[in-house]
Amino acid sequence: MVPISRRRFGRLALGVAGAAAAPWPLRALGRQRLLVDGDRLNRRLGELARFSSSAEGTTRLAYSDEDRAARAWLSDIMTGLGLDVHVDRAANLIGRRRGTDPSLAPILVGSHIDSVPAGGSYDGQVGSMGALEAIETLVDAGRDTRHPLELVIWANEEGGKTGSRAIAGETLPWEVDIVTASGFTIGEGTKRLGGDLTDLAAARREAGSLAAYLELHIEQGFVLDRGDLDIGVVQGIVGIRRWTVTVDGFANHAGTTPMDQRQDAMVTAARIIDAVHVTALELPGRHVATVGQLAAEPGAPNVIPGRVTFSLEIRDLAMTGIDAVFRAIRARAEEIAAADGTTVSIEQFYESRAAPTDPRLRDLIEAEADDLGLTSLRMPSGAGHDAQSVALLGPVGMIFVPSRDGISHSPLEFTEPDQITAGTNVLLRTLLAIDARGL
Amino acid sequence: MVPISRRRFGRLALGVAGAAAAPWPLRALGRQRLLVDGDRLNRRLGELARFSSSAEGTTRLAYSDEDRAARAWLSDIMTGLGLDVHVDRAANLIGRRRGTDPSLAPILVGSHIDSVPAGGSYDGQVGSMGALEAIETLVDAGRDTRHPLELVIWANEEGGKTGSRAIAGETLPWEVDIVTASGFTIGEGTKRLGGDLTDLAAARREAGSLAAYLELHIEQGFVLDRGDLDIGVVQGIVGIRRWTVTVDGFANHAGTTPMDQRQDAMVTAARIIDAVHVTALELPGRHVATVGQLAAEPGAPNVIPGRVTFSLEIRDLAMTGIDAVFRAIRARAEEIAAADGTTVSIEQFYESRAAPTDPRLRDLIEAEADDLGLTSLRMPSGAGHDAQSVALLGPVGMIFVPSRDGISHSPLEFTEPDQITAGTNVLLRTLLAIDARGL
Repeated sequence: MVPISRRRFGRLALGVAGAAAAPWPLRALGRQRLLVDGDRLNRRLGELARFSSSAEGTTRLAYSDEDRAARAWLSDIMTGLGLDVHVDRAANLIGRRRGTDPSLAPILVGSHIDSVPAGGSYDGQVGSMGALEAIETLVDAGRDTRHPLELVIWANEEGGKTGSRAIAGETLPWEVDIVTASGFTIGEGTKRLGGDLTDLAAARREAGSLAAYLELHIEQGFVLDRGDLDIGVVQGIVGIRRWTVTVDGFANHAGTTPMDQRQDAMVTAARIIDAVHVTALELPGRHVATVGQLAAEPGAPNVIPGRVTFSLEIRDLAMTGIDAVFRAIRARAEEIAAADGTTVSIEQFYESRAAPTDPRLRDLIEAEADDLGLTSLRMPSGAGHDAQSVALLGPVGMIFVPSRDGISHSPLEFTEPDQITAGTNVLLRTLLAIDARGL
Repeated sequence: MVPISRRRFGRLALGVAGAAAAPWPLRALGRQRLLVDGDRLNRRLGELARFSSSAEGTTRLAYSDEDRAARAWLSDIMTGLGLDVHVDRAANLIGRRRGTDPSLAPILVGSHIDSVPAGGSYDGQVGSMGALEAIETLVDAGRDTRHPLELVIWANEEGGKTGSRAIAGETLPWEVDIVTASGFTIGEGTKRLGGDLTDLAAARREAGSLAAYLELHIEQGFVLDRGDLDIGVVQGIVGIRRWTVTVDGFANHAGTTPMDQRQDAMVTAARIIDAVHVTALELPGRHVATVGQLAAEPGAPNVIPGRVTFSLEIRDLAMTGIDAVFRAIRARAEEIAAADGTTVSIEQFYESRAAPTDPRLRDLIEAEADDLGLTSLRMPSGAGHDAQSVALLGPVGMIFVPSRDGISHSPLEFTEPDQITAGTNVLLRTLLAIDARGL
């Protein structure tokens, strides 16, 4: 396990407090701390949650009317804060605050407000409202930054991370025609939000054009919740490879084929699936390996399966880590099949590149959490995020707050208001640290 | 392994020979042997195979036009042999030959001529033509029997063993409305063949109303073929129980849930499937246990399955044998689930009663095979047959001939003409032995 930062003042002692209400230890630190307004932040999350087509949780499909309405609401708030608001070609909603040093590239903070169907009210919304609250806190305090700040609400995260991928030059021409859950294609939806993806090259930002990108997000797993931890210092977004594993045996009558004369593809597949789990569990590292899907042919209770296919997914912070686990699994699978008199073939069908966060940002996030008396854990993000594409353009950092019971993409998704406030304070403090000292 | 009868004269030395052409050892036995005409028998099989809606193999669905035409053809042949031909209420086609002792119950011989879609030209057809050939041999030789003989072609074996189950009183009223592969319901189809199932009670035969039933059939497995054996002496038709096994874990994000904190229903299911195979393999006996079907929920490559359901089928000659294997498997499954932090529940959804053949008939078949210089093996029938219902009415015996590579219900189904002739000679000789000495 990765070491957990020392807890200083008790869990969340500061997370709930505005600056005025900061308890003794804070005031005793001897410098003026700027802290966010947790009440306002959590109230805003509640207001945002009303833009939903479902009564429970949140359904705010990218490009839908609810998405448009929520963005209009948010745009008004940003304008009210004096931000320079615009929508870029990929339909990312951006509110820019001027910096005092015109030579510096902007620091981006943000997340997404679109949801899956029947999703939760936390997911990207916590990081979006957190970014807004961080900037509003600066505005309220009249606190300038050297860097320009950009509050970014990415377009269509759930349906393909279109906004972030487009600015990183990752969106491919044919993707524009994908029909999203809203019923609109990505091209149509982008236009509905005020963007235009007919010229993909024009949607790109230059690599190096941003000083840093910070994203606050709920963990979507139960590591922080089970560990009673406040903050996840994200080491990176894991890479993913997926394969189809095919076991070929010999289909035969389940009644007339003696046990010792079978080439049962199901039995071999079962043994390989066990080996996938055991191999991934025993090899050192934070990788995960999963078999989520399986089909047997012909697939009748009275026929020994002649062929079984199943999915294999491996994730790790490093693609080399994925490869190492895969090689071990493949070797075991081939041994098992050979012993069973069956054959196994494995074909990759999907890959998502690992995106490490910037090590300097990890250190800053950890230090700021620690300074705020919050416990933290360095951890991979097993799920994908907009940050993984933004990482192609500049250094990215991610801050996780706990997901109760690890539940996500569900109306049952929940993070305590105090935990959200704590994470947002870390976001604000990290942003200020970058601004003050650079990376 | 069950001991194999001593080979007397070399494999199939007699099987191919008509009586006139019998080689030395036969003639040297000192009594007049009656043997079937293998050429005629195999020619008839070829003629029967023309009644098919598919070019390869045979498609002769029960109640179809092909079934009707084949039965009409066969009916004409039986009539030509002087048999008293009729169709009973369950649409079984019956040709009766008078016996010399009017006090004796009939000996039944037969099988079925319907096929599965895209089936083979052997299956029930070998036993049907074999029974015809056995009786034709008697007719040609002017050889009377004490018992009446009935050549029976059972109706709709493949779609539910309707003919044999109906005479045994096993057909239930709702079955009449089942739509068969032919498109006709069982009730409609029965009428198409000249029967009438509106009064199920009237379709029944009395228990004890037959002296014996003999059925020749292809093995539909590869035990005889791999063992280079001529004859299978069927110990009985195995009983079958089928269960749905449900493993409940906890569905979770495949990226965010560490390996050591999963309750992965797929991993538990895989371990149980391995245990099913190993338990069945290691317990002494001829039982078989099979997992042919599996479904994972939610069933996506990137989600740890929260629930996996799979079929479990166990077959054995004795229902108590099935129960013993099941208890061992269930105990292992519960141990595995407990260790994995998952739960397992098992629910039976199907049962088919085991039907042992008559021990006296097994001895007779084995002795006649041996006497004909054929090798034989006592073995269970893993597949179902009409004999299992007829067993409710009187003693049944079954004779298997090899299936090349164990293939059945496929156009690739094949049994050598010599092997068919050999099996038919055993059928004839066993019939004569019953007739001569009773059981």
